[in-house]
Amino acid sequence: MSRSPGRKQENHKISRELFVLTYGALVAQLCKDYEKDEDVNACLDRMGYSIGIRLIDDFLARSAVKKCRSYSETADMIAQVAFKMYLGITPSVSCNSATGNEFSLILDKNPLVDFVEELPAERASLCYCNLLCGVIRGALEMVNLAAEVSFLQDRLKGDAVTEIGITFLRKPEDRKHRR
Amino acid sequence: MSRSPGRKQENHKISRELFVLTYGALVAQLCKDYEKDEDVNACLDRMGYSIGIRLIDDFLARSAVKKCRSYSETADMIAQVAFKMYLGITPSVSCNSATGNEFSLILDKNPLVDFVEELPAERASLCYCNLLCGVIRGALEMVNLAAEVSFLQDRLKGDAVTEIGITFLRKPEDRKHRR
Repeated sequence: MSRSPGRKQENHKISRELFVLTYGALVAQLCKDYEKDEDVNACLDRMGYSIGIRLIDDFLARSAVKKCRSYSETADMIAQVAFKMYLGITPSVSCNSATGNEFSLILDKNPLVDFVEELPAERASLCYCNLLCGVIRGALEMVNLAAEVSFLQDRLKGDAVTEIGITFLRKPEDRKHRR
Repeated sequence: MSRSPGRKQENHKISRELFVLTYGALVAQLCKDYEKDEDVNACLDRMGYSIGIRLIDDFLARSAVKKCRSYSETADMIAQVAFKMYLGITPSVSCNSATGNEFSLILDKNPLVDFVEELPAERASLCYCNLLCGVIRGALEMVNLAAEVSFLQDRLKGDAVTEIGITFLRKPEDRKHRR
């Protein structure tokens, strides 16, 4: 039997709208469950973490990428390969520190909020897309990279862009070598 | 500026895995929230309904399909166009009644359960994918078709296939005409 090239990959693709609306239902449910925005944010982050530690295998298998040799390469990989693969967008990357371990992913467009007009006034501290931070954190941990990931700017909150900050946490051994 | 054909549509596509895992997080959260499987099922159906009534506009805009002239055509449209577009699969359709208003969508493969081994023993009545029923019901309602949609078989529960039953509810006017 012949197969058209790329067919297998095509089978992995679905329409974004169903995902975006389902994600909205998840956030709405958590807003019912938790009074405080901080608790919703933490829950989304935890859920994302659980997803990230499972998604990394899929990512490594399908992207066939090689091991990154620097934090900078890793940040580029997240933006150019992972975001493209899973959300169909490619954020731009900027390095935020002289020490080279802090990066920003800048999203001009955030598909996850396609159907969201704005946050309700009583949910001003909600990080609507916080699941993404958890996913990145979880996936990085599985390739032995500890990181803090959080939203630095959010268009839903009136910022000009949406910005996800990634701070790679140096391991104690790294520090020892540097001293 | 030139654009490659089909580019707009490509932007709507994302990888299925993130969706499937996010859906799993949603179901898990509802299982925390509600003790009874029936309540989880009802909540998934309600959520799906809310999604369906919003998704229909996207579907009509992107599929550019014409008005269906029969329940049978509608069932085929759901299976061959909508499922293909949103989940990347095409269920087979069978008509279950002489009156021509009951159909089954048979899913040999259900991408939503890709990461689910089996239902836990204490969740034996959970309709894991019940969101789909709500989506179909909500979308149909927006094109003036009342329907009951439910899982008739589920591979997660040991059945040979996964089967979604759709019963179109005849309008009172239809009945009058028939008498």
